[in-house]
This record gives sequence, structure tokens and C-alpha cells, in this order.
Amino acid sequence: MKTMTGRTQGADSSLREVLAMAAGETAQVHGIVHTLRDLGDVRFMLLRMPQGTLQCVLTGEGPAVREGDAVRASGEVAKDERAPGGAELHVTALTVLASAAEPMPVPIGKNRMNLTLDTDLSLRFVTLRNLRRRAVFKVQEGVVRGFREALQREGFTEIHSPKIVAQNAEGGANLFRMEYFGRRAYLAQSPQFYKQAMVPVYERVFEIGPVFRAEKHNTQRHLNEYTSMDFEMGFIDSFEDVMQMETKVLQTIMQVLKTDYAPQLSLLGVTLPEVGEIPTVRFDEAKRMVSEKYHRPIRDPFDLEPEEEQLISRLFEEEYGSEFVFVTHYPSKKRPFYAADDPEDPRYTLSFDLLFRGLEVTTGGQRIHDYQTQVEKMRKKGLDPADFEGYLMIHKYGTCPHGGLGLGLERLTSRLLGENNVREACLFPRDQQRIEP
Amino acid sequence: MKTMTGRTQGADSSLREVLAMAAGETAQVHGIVHTLRDLGDVRFMLLRMPQGTLQCVLTGEGPAVREGDAVRASGEVAKDERAPGGAELHVTALTVLASAAEPMPVPIGKNRMNLTLDTDLSLRFVTLRNLRRRAVFKVQEGVVRGFREALQREGFTEIHSPKIVAQNAEGGANLFRMEYFGRRAYLAQSPQFYKQAMVPVYERVFEIGPVFRAEKHNTQRHLNEYTSMDFEMGFIDSFEDVMQMETKVLQTIMQVLKTDYAPQLSLLGVTLPEVGEIPTVRFDEAKRMVSEKYHRPIRDPFDLEPEEEQLISRLFEEEYGSEFVFVTHYPSKKRPFYAADDPEDPRYTLSFDLLFRGLEVTTGGQRIHDYQTQVEKMRKKGLDPADFEGYLMIHKYGTCPHGGLGLGLERLTSRLLGENNVREACLFPRDQQRIEP
Repeated sequence: MKTMTGRTQGADSSLREVLAMAAGETAQVHGIVHTLRDLGDVRFMLLRMPQGTLQCVLTGEGPAVREGDAVRASGEVAKDERAPGGAELHVTALTVLASAAEPMPVPIGKNRMNLTLDTDLSLRFVTLRNLRRRAVFKVQEGVVRGFREALQREGFTEIHSPKIVAQNAEGGANLFRMEYFGRRAYLAQSPQFYKQAMVPVYERVFEIGPVFRAEKHNTQRHLNEYTSMDFEMGFIDSFEDVMQMETKVLQTIMQVLKTDYAPQLSLLGVTLPEVGEIPTVRFDEAKRMVSEKYHRPIRDPFDLEPEEEQLISRLFEEEYGSEFVFVTHYPSKKRPFYAADDPEDPRYTLSFDLLFRGLEVTTGGQRIHDYQTQVEKMRKKGLDPADFEGYLMIHKYGTCPHGGLGLGLERLTSRLLGENNVREACLFPRDQQRIEP
Repeated sequence: MKTMTGRTQGADSSLREVLAMAAGETAQVHGIVHTLRDLGDVRFMLLRMPQGTLQCVLTGEGPAVREGDAVRASGEVAKDERAPGGAELHVTALTVLASAAEPMPVPIGKNRMNLTLDTDLSLRFVTLRNLRRRAVFKVQEGVVRGFREALQREGFTEIHSPKIVAQNAEGGANLFRMEYFGRRAYLAQSPQFYKQAMVPVYERVFEIGPVFRAEKHNTQRHLNEYTSMDFEMGFIDSFEDVMQMETKVLQTIMQVLKTDYAPQLSLLGVTLPEVGEIPTVRFDEAKRMVSEKYHRPIRDPFDLEPEEEQLISRLFEEEYGSEFVFVTHYPSKKRPFYAADDPEDPRYTLSFDLLFRGLEVTTGGQRIHDYQTQVEKMRKKGLDPADFEGYLMIHKYGTCPHGGLGLGLERLTSRLLGENNVREACLFPRDQQRIEP
């Protein structure tokens, strides 16, 4: 009887292993043919491998091969400064493991493909093979890792909450409805209720998962499905504890990227932001500062317009050298029913947004923990507490002062990489026109 | 101007820190009152903290406090063998930070609450505060960590694929439909297409996320939304490479649980399975063995009945001492269109299920990588390749021999913990009757 033992090592070398070999050593590798230059008696085959590309030199006879083929190659390592990584493989044996059926529809081998975003997204299964494209989502992996590692170290427990729900935390019109065995159900706009419910269980929790917003806006900043990185923490002394934790998380993310994702950042020409200290500014004060400095009238006293977010970012970058800024104390009118009001002035909440390079990437704050206070605020907002009987069990049976936030993965990634359109930082974006691929 | 610096340490001690202190040292802690025994001149307050419970002894006057209240307490550490962890806190100062509005509706302080599953699930926001309940989902966190850490070490890249899709990989009747800006869309049954698409990009990918199945079955084994742990790996020599990788993953999971989750496993009385070697058996051979040993006629030659899965598990446990068994070479008729057929006998596929303690927890196998082969298999299955134009780009423009699997988080957790109903291992389960809380 055959048994599995967990043996996972193959005979092939990784790119890093090949690049570390001395000239003259023999290596066997596998990869997909990224580009091919046929000069007649010599063929230069650039192999796409997980850690980068390896230049393979084919001379003499050998099997036919073309871009997109999966091959295994063995040969002798030679040092050559012109090759990526400073080494190449002089191939002595080549096996085609799988063949592409057609030539590439777009030049994925080029550094920049110069496609419209629409073409890029429609051919996503192909265009992601471009080295710059795949670097974007490798960096995104690093962002997720940094978020998770920071919180694990701080004692947070990872949870998985349902996406099919009977009720939504954020309310409003941007709900996706679905049929659920003859009933009406919705897709979750956020894990808000669930992460709050878990605070009296684990004190600190986080979740990284999809959220769904039926936004009618077709802007560069909106996706109808995105990955939200959420955390919620109990026993806070102030909503500043939540901002401190986010600062810590961002510091860890940048550290992880710097340490483990340098090749991708270099390929993309990205300079990481400094995040040693993040300034804070009150919402009303930020509005006033921007209005004064940039001679811009305040039109909506209760919310920030996208242009104001950009100007606040610009002002804090120009005057304080920070690409991040926490805007605090948003008006109660514009925050959800679970937001804790400022006891010093209940027209404002103990809440914040984090702006990064002109874009809101986080919304967070302290939540109401007291049952009566929550019931009253619901009533003041025109909501019937009876509709929230399940949710209110959290408060009724006791929770602690707590707060948390949601950090939009695609928004953060797109700003990190200097992309204006958030779709560039989403593997397979969903917008009003697009549910494929 | 106030700035955030990432300072995240409070003044309070964790439970581990308190238990490590010498008798007579002073400590300040916070937690939620888990149980309270009032003996008149002395009150025993068991504090629920993330790492366990701390017995606090209150004497003399002090604020009124009840179960569910969030408190901060300081006092002197005393050693007492009768207290959990061998130490207790003689409280000299107590502050109530938040108050419960009503007494607990169920005895969450008891080891076993003796609730029906239905009551437990309806009161989930409260019942999860029970120490056994929260231990279940802490162990589940460890399972996820083990899965992720094993694959990260093996060079897999983490991805996030969309859950709103135009098309589904598994087909069949168990699709959830939704309205998407006037179009028909579906919830993803699996990340199958997307993880296959990412193989020519990163070679090895994984995803941990929700999947949705509109199963009509209301059994102990089915959920309508569950967390799937998926991976897909390129350049495999055989589908055995996928089973080897899963064995490695399971070994890592058990190691992580053993190292970091011992208190929870001990509380739940769980013995971890041995997973040094996992036997394999062909589908037809397994059917025959079970039929012979347990005198059970073979009714469905193309699929395993739940009872057969249980008997196969029993047989391999009895005869080979393994609680895991890979059943390989499922009939082509019952596997999806992307399953690679066995070249030696195309009535069977290069696929497998993993059975664990009587339940299928994984389905996996090698996928078709050749464009023409995939087009032909679709036709043979009565599918129109034109409907899969997007998906077929993967094959048309070149991929490598690859395979992968999906591991059901709740099923694996429930079997690990010896729970018969998979709902016990899902934070907020979704079934035909239940979309709340």
C-alpha cells in the first residue's frame, strides 16, 4: 500500500538557488517561457519562475518551444552581467511539459504593456503574467501579511464571519440582495456586528475577507466587492488606542515589505512612505485649514468631499512631511448608529478616517458599549431597536469599551504603488460593468 | 498637534504575566466578569481574559458588580492551588468600566451549558463567551495558521479572488443567484477558476475564504456557506504531489496546535491524530474492501455513500491505525470537467478525497492543462466550450501540469474536536433555516 509522508521537495532548483551557484555547476529548473528570441543558431529563452526570470541559452538542435510553454531545462550555470540576476543557464537538455495552443494576445513580456485598463482587465488571466502586474499582487500579499503578523503579535484572534446576512451594519442603499431558500438575504457590507460580538469573547479580533457594496458610483475609488482588513479591540481607554494600533500595523506592513518584497518594490519603482509618526487633525479643523490655505469654500459641513481629502493630504505632506493623516471627530450625523459620540460635544463622534496620499483608506472609531446608550442612539437615528434585537445582545449581556476599524486592501495597495485607479490593485475587480473574469 | 506613534502597550497585565508573578506582587488587570459567587463578606469573581480566567477575591466594601460587567482590578497576587492557574488576585481596587444590562440568559459560566444546538446558535453572541465554545474557535484559528504557515514556507502566494461571479466551476443546482445591477450573477462555489488562472503567474497559490453552496441537504455535514482552504500548485509530476503537500500541511497544522493551542485542546479533551503517514487506496478497491469486510452490497459504483466513507475510515483505522485515508481515482463521471483523466484508464480521474474520522474533508486532484484535451472533455460532458472562453484562456496561452485541493475548515475542525455536527465548528452557521445571527 502506498502512503503519503509529506515529502514535498522536487529535484528542480529555485531561481535563488541557481543564482547562488558557481559558474560551471549544473542545474535543473522548471518554468514557463516568458519571452523567446530566436537568433538562428542561438535562442534566448527567458524563463518565468516564482522568484523572477532566468535567462536560458539554447544552442544547436532542440525541441520546438514557444512563449507560454511550460518546460524543464537543465544545463550549466554561467555568469553574465547582462542577464537578469547576473547568471544564465546554458541548456543541455530541454523538455516541454505543456504547450500553449496560441501565441500571446498581448505582449506580456514587455515591461509596460501599454493596454487600456479595460483590455487589461478583460484579458486578466493573461495580463497577470506580466512581471509588473504580478509584482503588484505580490506586494499586496505582503500588505496582508504585515497586517496579520502585527495583530497576531498583539494578541488578536482571527475570525471568519458569514457573508450571507439578514441585516447590515452600515445600512443605506448600497446593499446587494439575494434569494435565500425563498427568503430575502443580503451580502455583508462589513463584518461589523460579528467582530463587535467577538470582543467579549476574545477581547481582540481581526478578519481579512470580502465585503460587498452595491455602490452606484463608478469612480476610480470604488469597487463593488473588495477585501476588508478589519480589527476590533476591547478595553480601550480612548479611540486613540485604535489609531495607535493602526499606526503599529502600518509600521509592521512597511517593515515586512522592506524586508521580504524589495525585488517587487524595485521593479515597480515604489518608495515606501515613512510611518514613524502619523499626525491627527479634527475634522472641522481640517476643513478650515484646507479652506484657508487653498481658498476653497466649505460646501458640506458634515462630510469630506474627495477633493478635500486630497487637499488635506497635500497640506499635511507639505507642512508636516507626512503622507498619512488621521482625521478625527466626524459629525455624528454622518457616522453609523454604533459610533460613540464625543461626551464633550455629542454632535461629533469618537471616530476617524485615515487618509493616505489623498485617499481615505480606513474608517474607524470607538463603538457604543452601553446598552441604554445604544438603544437611545438608534431611536435618535430613526431606527427601531426591536429590529436589532440580536445585535443588542452584545450590549445587553455585557461588553467592554471597544473600537476598531476597516482598512481597504485595494485602496491601500493602490496608493502604495502610486496607482490612481483602485482596480489596478484588485486581482479581478467587480464594478457595475464587470463581473468577469 | 497630536501624533500617533504606534505605542500599543497599556498598563494592565495579561493573565500569563500575573500567573508568572511571585506571591505578594501587585498587579492590575482587566477582563469581563465570567462568574461571581457572593459569600457575604467575600466575593469570588472569575475574570474572563483572553488567555483564560483569573480568580479575583473581593473583601469588604466595593462597587456593585455582576456577571457580564467589564472591570479593571488591581491587587496582590496570592498563590492558591484551588484557583485556575494556581494563583488569584486579592483585589484592593475595582473599577467597573461597562455594565451588563441584564443577567445572562444561559449559564455561560458552566463547563457544559447543556443547550440544544438550536438554542446555542440562536444565542450565539452570548454562548460563544462560554470557555469551551471559545476554545473551539481558537483551535480553528490554529488550523488556519498551520495551513497558511505550511504553504508560505513552501513558496505559495496568497490570493483574494472574487465571490461575485458570472459563472461557477462546480456547476450543478447548488448555486446562489443574485441581482447585480440588473444582471444575473452568482456566489462562488469555489475559487477554482481563479486559482488555476494564477498558476502560470505564481506557480503556487492559496486562498482561505468563504464559498457558497445552495445545498438542499440539511444534514450534519452540510453548510450553505463555509470557509474553504484552497491551494493550487504547478509543475507537479503526478497528482500524488498534491497529496504529499496536503500531508505536509496537516503535519504542520498538528504541530502548530500542539505547540500553541495546548490549553484549548486540554480544555476540550482533544487528542490530536497521528499524521506521520497517510495511506492511499483506490476508489474501486476501497468500495470492494468495505463491501467484503462489513458485508455491505455496493449500490452506487460511481460515488461513495456517507456510510461507505465512514466504513472506509473505520477499516483503515482498524487495520492500518490511520485516522486519515486518501481515496484516489474517482470515476470521471462524478468529477468536474477540469479533472484530469487517468491515461491508463480514462474512466477514472487523477483525483482524490481525503477522509478523516469518517468524513470527507478534502477534494482534490490533477487538472487538465492542455487546451485541446480540456475542450474535448467539456464536449464529452455536454458543455459548450464557447461558454468557457474566459476560463480557457488559461490553457490556450499556456499553463503547466498542475493540481490542487479544497479543505473544508469547519469539517476538519469538527472532526478534530470529535463533534458530529459541522455547525459546532462554525462561528455563525448558515443553513436553510438560519441566516441569523
